[in-house]
Amino acid sequence: MDEESTIGIIGSGSWATAIAKMVLNNSDRLNWYFREEEHIERFKKVGHNPNYLTSVDFDTDKIFFSTDINEIVEQSDILIFVIPSAFLKEALKPLKASLKEKYVVSAIKGLIPDENLIIGNFFNKHYEVPINSIAVISGPCHAEEVALERLSYLTIACQDIKRARIFAAKLRCSYIKTTVIDDIYGTEYSAVMKNVMAIAAGICHGLGYGDNFQAVLISNGIQEIKRFVDTIHPITRDIKSSAYLGDLLVTAYSQFSRNRTFGNMLGKGYSVKSAQLEMLMIAEGYYAVKSIMDINKKYKVNMPITEAVYNIIYEKISPAIEIKLLTDQLR
Amino acid sequence: MDEESTIGIIGSGSWATAIAKMVLNNSDRLNWYFREEEHIERFKKVGHNPNYLTSVDFDTDKIFFSTDINEIVEQSDILIFVIPSAFLKEALKPLKASLKEKYVVSAIKGLIPDENLIIGNFFNKHYEVPINSIAVISGPCHAEEVALERLSYLTIACQDIKRARIFAAKLRCSYIKTTVIDDIYGTEYSAVMKNVMAIAAGICHGLGYGDNFQAVLISNGIQEIKRFVDTIHPITRDIKSSAYLGDLLVTAYSQFSRNRTFGNMLGKGYSVKSAQLEMLMIAEGYYAVKSIMDINKKYKVNMPITEAVYNIIYEKISPAIEIKLLTDQLR
Repeated sequence: MDEESTIGIIGSGSWATAIAKMVLNNSDRLNWYFREEEHIERFKKVGHNPNYLTSVDFDTDKIFFSTDINEIVEQSDILIFVIPSAFLKEALKPLKASLKEKYVVSAIKGLIPDENLIIGNFFNKHYEVPINSIAVISGPCHAEEVALERLSYLTIACQDIKRARIFAAKLRCSYIKTTVIDDIYGTEYSAVMKNVMAIAAGICHGLGYGDNFQAVLISNGIQEIKRFVDTIHPITRDIKSSAYLGDLLVTAYSQFSRNRTFGNMLGKGYSVKSAQLEMLMIAEGYYAVKSIMDINKKYKVNMPITEAVYNIIYEKISPAIEIKLLTDQLR
Repeated sequence: MDEESTIGIIGSGSWATAIAKMVLNNSDRLNWYFREEEHIERFKKVGHNPNYLTSVDFDTDKIFFSTDINEIVEQSDILIFVIPSAFLKEALKPLKASLKEKYVVSAIKGLIPDENLIIGNFFNKHYEVPINSIAVISGPCHAEEVALERLSYLTIACQDIKRARIFAAKLRCSYIKTTVIDDIYGTEYSAVMKNVMAIAAGICHGLGYGDNFQAVLISNGIQEIKRFVDTIHPITRDIKSSAYLGDLLVTAYSQFSRNRTFGNMLGKGYSVKSAQLEMLMIAEGYYAVKSIMDINKKYKVNMPITEAVYNIIYEKISPAIEIKLLTDQLR
């Protein structure tokens, strides 16, 4: 990978679209995989993603679109994956081209549900991508604000810091600042856990707890995240950095976070099923909390907030009772 | 001081009223100092503080009101001071009674402007109150939510942990949980600095920066607070606790914070004077940022956010330029 490397994006949602916008600020070429030919046709016709961030206009001459994932992989040096983690395996089924020599970037923020693997480990294990060729995009970043070109900070994590810097330069522009760190495990796990915390924040809001309590919940939340990632991957990290704490804050305090909205509905008395139907999508934290609880069977980290969310979603304990019990464990 | 000790409150604003409500949950007696006799008369007549938290009804038979600060001090074992720090010296001018044997609690969250002293040091220096007899009430706590009996967590800081526990028990009730720590310096300084951070958050919001940036600002803010308090008073503390991080979050993310509102007006182009006139009050962070900058002349801690707020308020640098420069120092 070098400055001239070509980037391919696998995914077509709002975060994928925001990343495409950043890439095309610095590059005349982008390969972009869409599942449906019709989606591509409409994109070309209207000059923007017809479904997400529709205000962002693209010069489609610079984009090579394809519904063939192999073609996109073969023609790209850097592959950025932006697909909900629960659907990643399905999306990769047609993939025959090798990823071994590619620089693989996860912008996913989730775990592979049945295997409880972070995305980096998944690509390492199943696609023989060396750990040093895996990067994670993290940081507090609503795609909608990238569309508006509001200043945002991204953290690029990669164990090979030199390559992290080369890749970061490809995203940096007037409204995107970048930092590099070597902690792919910490950034991935904490990005996953923040969605669980956002569900908790939503549940408490739905139950009528106020801002005083939310501040206590989030303070305890970042402590819980630190306990977990420091156990899983014990290196020196400052959990107060934007990549960890910032990412938690932007999600947990956002009215627009899917995870917070899902939690809010649970707190207001919706069942898990009806909240999901109402939202027409499944919040990532729904899967994440189960995976994290599974992983933690081995580590036994004290995680009262994660446990409470798990009990509410999977054990069908009443949110009012579960959160009441939780309040005694916070401080 | 023991379980039977009588509490006196010096101050009559919303936070004083919230604390009075907590105290009277556990006690049949409260001494309460008001500056104006008329205020007391109206309080007795309507059964609640006529100016603040008017929804909170009090059994006025349990309250001994007085406009004589000496009388209140003499009849109380524990004195809780809840007066804006800029006016504390003025309020204490008539005080002749000794505080030496009293347990003095600061619920002030400010510094004495001309002396740049935290409240604990001020009472120690000028009123000979031993440091072990000084406590600080901290934690994320809007008075308005106490009025609504929404669950809130307070931290009581006192170097004498045993006495902190005795005092904490006097505030604890169904909607107030308490924690004790021995860090009066850290809690006071961080409570002061969070107001500066809230001004910064307001300025950035007023300038049009979005949620992504706010998350980065607050993450950097708590790091800046940690650097400062760890330098001023180097003990082991977890800055992610509710007393520090929680207190910052509830203020910086609150639409109702005076400091954030003040900053927001500066960001929108109001001058300092006109923002203050419009608000009919002076945000505590206005004084705090000057004191902190003065104190830091000695310590030289790297504090880009505090400096930016100082430059905007006291050096009249354009908020747009100052914050643009700040963005290069955050990460």
